[in-house]
Amino acid sequence: MTQNEDRSNLKIIPLGGLHEIGKNTCIFEYEDEILLLDAGIAFPTENMHGVNIVLPDMTYLRDNRHKIKAMIATHGHEDHIGGIPYHLKQFDIPVIYGPRLAMALLREKLEEAGVANRTTLKTVGPREIVKVGSSFVVEFIRNTHSIADSFSVAIHTPIGVIIHTGDFKIDHTPVDGEYFDLQKLAEHGEKGVLCLLSDSTNAEVPGVTPSEQSVTPNLDRVFAQAPGRLMITTFASSVHRVNIVLQLAQKYGRKVAVVGRSMLNVIAHARNLGYIKCPDDIFAPIKAVRNLPDEKVLILTTGSQGEPLAAMTRISNGDHPQIKIRQGDTVVFSANPIPGNTIAVVNTIDRLMMMGANVIYGRDKGIHVSGHGSQEEQKMMLSLTKPKFFMPVHGEHRMLVKHAQMAQSMGIPAENTVIVKNGDVIELSRDRIEVVSQVSSGLQLVDRAGVVHDNIMQERQQLAEDGVVTIASAIDWDGKLMVQPEVHLRGVVTTVERSLLQQLIVKSIERTLSERWSEFSQSANGEALEVDWATLREEIESHLQRLVRRELQSSPLVIFLLQTPEPTPTRTYRRRRSTASVASSEQSLFPVNS
Amino acid sequence: MTQNEDRSNLKIIPLGGLHEIGKNTCIFEYEDEILLLDAGIAFPTENMHGVNIVLPDMTYLRDNRHKIKAMIATHGHEDHIGGIPYHLKQFDIPVIYGPRLAMALLREKLEEAGVANRTTLKTVGPREIVKVGSSFVVEFIRNTHSIADSFSVAIHTPIGVIIHTGDFKIDHTPVDGEYFDLQKLAEHGEKGVLCLLSDSTNAEVPGVTPSEQSVTPNLDRVFAQAPGRLMITTFASSVHRVNIVLQLAQKYGRKVAVVGRSMLNVIAHARNLGYIKCPDDIFAPIKAVRNLPDEKVLILTTGSQGEPLAAMTRISNGDHPQIKIRQGDTVVFSANPIPGNTIAVVNTIDRLMMMGANVIYGRDKGIHVSGHGSQEEQKMMLSLTKPKFFMPVHGEHRMLVKHAQMAQSMGIPAENTVIVKNGDVIELSRDRIEVVSQVSSGLQLVDRAGVVHDNIMQERQQLAEDGVVTIASAIDWDGKLMVQPEVHLRGVVTTVERSLLQQLIVKSIERTLSERWSEFSQSANGEALEVDWATLREEIESHLQRLVRRELQSSPLVIFLLQTPEPTPTRTYRRRRSTASVASSEQSLFPVNS
Repeated sequence: MTQNEDRSNLKIIPLGGLHEIGKNTCIFEYEDEILLLDAGIAFPTENMHGVNIVLPDMTYLRDNRHKIKAMIATHGHEDHIGGIPYHLKQFDIPVIYGPRLAMALLREKLEEAGVANRTTLKTVGPREIVKVGSSFVVEFIRNTHSIADSFSVAIHTPIGVIIHTGDFKIDHTPVDGEYFDLQKLAEHGEKGVLCLLSDSTNAEVPGVTPSEQSVTPNLDRVFAQAPGRLMITTFASSVHRVNIVLQLAQKYGRKVAVVGRSMLNVIAHARNLGYIKCPDDIFAPIKAVRNLPDEKVLILTTGSQGEPLAAMTRISNGDHPQIKIRQGDTVVFSANPIPGNTIAVVNTIDRLMMMGANVIYGRDKGIHVSGHGSQEEQKMMLSLTKPKFFMPVHGEHRMLVKHAQMAQSMGIPAENTVIVKNGDVIELSRDRIEVVSQVSSGLQLVDRAGVVHDNIMQERQQLAEDGVVTIASAIDWDGKLMVQPEVHLRGVVTTVERSLLQQLIVKSIERTLSERWSEFSQSANGEALEVDWATLREEIESHLQRLVRRELQSSPLVIFLLQTPEPTPTRTYRRRRSTASVASSEQSLFPVNS
Repeated sequence: MTQNEDRSNLKIIPLGGLHEIGKNTCIFEYEDEILLLDAGIAFPTENMHGVNIVLPDMTYLRDNRHKIKAMIATHGHEDHIGGIPYHLKQFDIPVIYGPRLAMALLREKLEEAGVANRTTLKTVGPREIVKVGSSFVVEFIRNTHSIADSFSVAIHTPIGVIIHTGDFKIDHTPVDGEYFDLQKLAEHGEKGVLCLLSDSTNAEVPGVTPSEQSVTPNLDRVFAQAPGRLMITTFASSVHRVNIVLQLAQKYGRKVAVVGRSMLNVIAHARNLGYIKCPDDIFAPIKAVRNLPDEKVLILTTGSQGEPLAAMTRISNGDHPQIKIRQGDTVVFSANPIPGNTIAVVNTIDRLMMMGANVIYGRDKGIHVSGHGSQEEQKMMLSLTKPKFFMPVHGEHRMLVKHAQMAQSMGIPAENTVIVKNGDVIELSRDRIEVVSQVSSGLQLVDRAGVVHDNIMQERQQLAEDGVVTIASAIDWDGKLMVQPEVHLRGVVTTVERSLLQQLIVKSIERTLSERWSEFSQSANGEALEVDWATLREEIESHLQRLVRRELQSSPLVIFLLQTPEPTPTRTYRRRRSTASVASSEQSLFPVNS
């Protein structure tokens, strides 16, 4: 660890966004001040049963909440701002700076989550400069990306200037005419950049990502040729793409029905703020377009990733209440499937085709381009900013490695480049960059009801794989079964006869009771009896687990519910209890086993 | 339905392989004779919890087992022969004809499954002709594919010649020197082909699939440049690829350790049969190669698809008992991920890189080619055979559509082309092809313990999403709880206090009992009591379900176990029972609720 004599070091702590695409969250910490850059969510992978969203472990930020001076949102994508409502339930953020569109989307999220009072949102424009605490000055630099109003930032710190690119491509013909502020980047390159943190998403893709405008002539051809209704699905947040589609709808005189909550939401905000300019009367409710001739209809929907509940997916399943596919419909997927969604997307396409739609999809059609720059753009970013140190961000491990190799091929020494992972604490001084320690960096999985902890996820995995065997029994003070144990199988495959399984289970419980009862129960005096029910329950359960695995030849979750007489240690209790009103039981509850 | 005057029609019934890649299974039926062509398995999709393999619904074939005269296996891939051991448990197949390698692999499968006596395996060579029943004559035509010893077939039927391509590419420089028998196809084209069934896998891919030989120079470069140990993973069944790797190992003097059961198995059979020619001494056990210099070691493994239990995946997880990655290792993925496996594969690559391996992967490296022909090869097949009717097979719906469009662009009328789905009954006469009916065509899901029925899969889905709440209670003849109900949560997320939940559950049960007990129980005479326990249980359970959903705000599976006194309808029973030996319970078991 190096220390300059006159200055402290800057700490950079990415909590998400590395070795993955998603939940971008990065801490800049100087002495006792923290600047947070972005706080996104990720989407669950297939083994995260029932999980809706994935957040980074925020322990470090929660523990250091008193240091947080401000947050920056670089742009309005979910993987950059989606986590904020969750975090604000745990700690306040004094102020969040970001572009207009991101702030509008975020304001709504915070209000929905009831946490709007936990922070202040401040909209910033290009080249605007804000002071954060006494350590940071942040300068917002217009960049180009798939969502409108996106920023890179230059963070002036006591040890030098850090540039964080946010998400970017270099689009020389942006749809909204908002050009990448390359001059400002070059100016920093000239003055000296201490460290660059740059988007690595397309580090494996050679060449240059085509301009968003390049899809216009190809979509135009689709509009020109579609004989009947036209349905287009894309990412709701791809404001530029939506803009292109709406302009073509005007050109070809098609009324636009917008379907899907997020699509409606983004279009409303983007129109309010002037990112989408089109007359009110090109829109029509879905019910109204039914009365129009087919060739005058455009339906713009969510569902480009085959998401189970999204509009296009429901249309393909034939269960959308308003929209049924018919012969002559043209459906356009103006988006590529994200890896992991491929099967859901191609299945959706197949179903639409089987219903008679002409489906236009695929990489060779020129109807989608990435929002992230490819290798040549990543090199251009390095060339413009000429950083001393380089830290590739926003990508899976092999993308970070490729990006670092590019930097080294351009003359940045290997020791000035770091490949880091979530939770790494990177210490940056004027003459060194290094990983010095780790903070906790796991995942926080959230389902409809709250946070899903590891043990619960393991249980769900076991339940999904092999189902559950539930066994209930009630044991009396005499160490005998009070009633017949009940056995119940759900999600379990077996050829074993149910009655045989029940017999074996009863025998197993009785064997344990007859062999061990005397150990677990002792008479404290003439009348009172004390029984170690918990240990007895465990003992029986572990025998039952072995029995079930052996007999069923699979490993379902085994739940053994042991009902016992009320915990009053008197032999006479049960007899009293069985005639007493059960209402009294509410006052003396057993702890639940779980 | 058309009928020629002199002849019956041929029925073609694909049970698998359409609208999917996998479980290829096709019935040819003429009057009372059935010829079965291939019988494969598919692999489960992500929502098939716990499922190991997927089979087609074989009801139709089981019901018509008496008609089965023979089966043809076109080649030894799992999606063409993997289902046979399962089907032979349900019905015999008099004889199975197929190429040597497929028959060798199949023989082993049948022996393992204990069904070798249910059929006779007969090896056939190129241009060999076999008579099947009185309706079919089958001619085996050498083709080229990723596995050695693969066939297309010409099926001579009373109404004309049907050509089924099996899986194919047109490789003009096959690794094993076994050329595609284009002459025989052309001869049939000249004489007249009634119908072509052709592989559609790459119908979306323009151009020509490169020869298997094209990977040789690229893999050679990898061998030449690898500084230390070299590890290569590919499909075990890609015999040609394995051959290339083994030849390069010889050239560069590396000893080969083969890791993974299926890789060992296929290499053993392929060497036995002469498809792989190499000296014994290039192989070495994994323990022995540890003593060799790193640059003299090649490890050839399974796991190219990121399969959880395969060798390369275990190596990447650091839990392979013999192989640990170290700096200087070169790992080669000589296979592209199948859609659906992408994330598993890239995660494996990332983990290997993080451990210090140089990983070589990706489509631009020229280290993998497909085993299936692209559009130009599919057109060549159509041009050589000049079929009157065309039925694209082996592909997802949009591939079949593309393939049909190609055929139409080459002059086959649209009405002579059918796009069919699994279970369709296609009737073919000399002048017409049409879908006339449907047989049952669902999926049969198999896990370690047996067939997983739909209801079980639904239960597993619910368990995976939201977990399970189990409630046990015992109710006495007086309609009161005998003991405290037990409540148990697994895989459930909630912020509700356990004791509160338990209180609410007890109240709910008591409310139902107090309101409904008199309806469900009736005194038959002075002493005896009859209780409709089953209906009572359902009633309580449905109240508990609503309670749990409302309180937990999620939808876990709710299992309510009701234990009741022995079914003897006497009020005195319980008291007797509670002192009697529980051993007697083995003789009088309740049916298990499930």
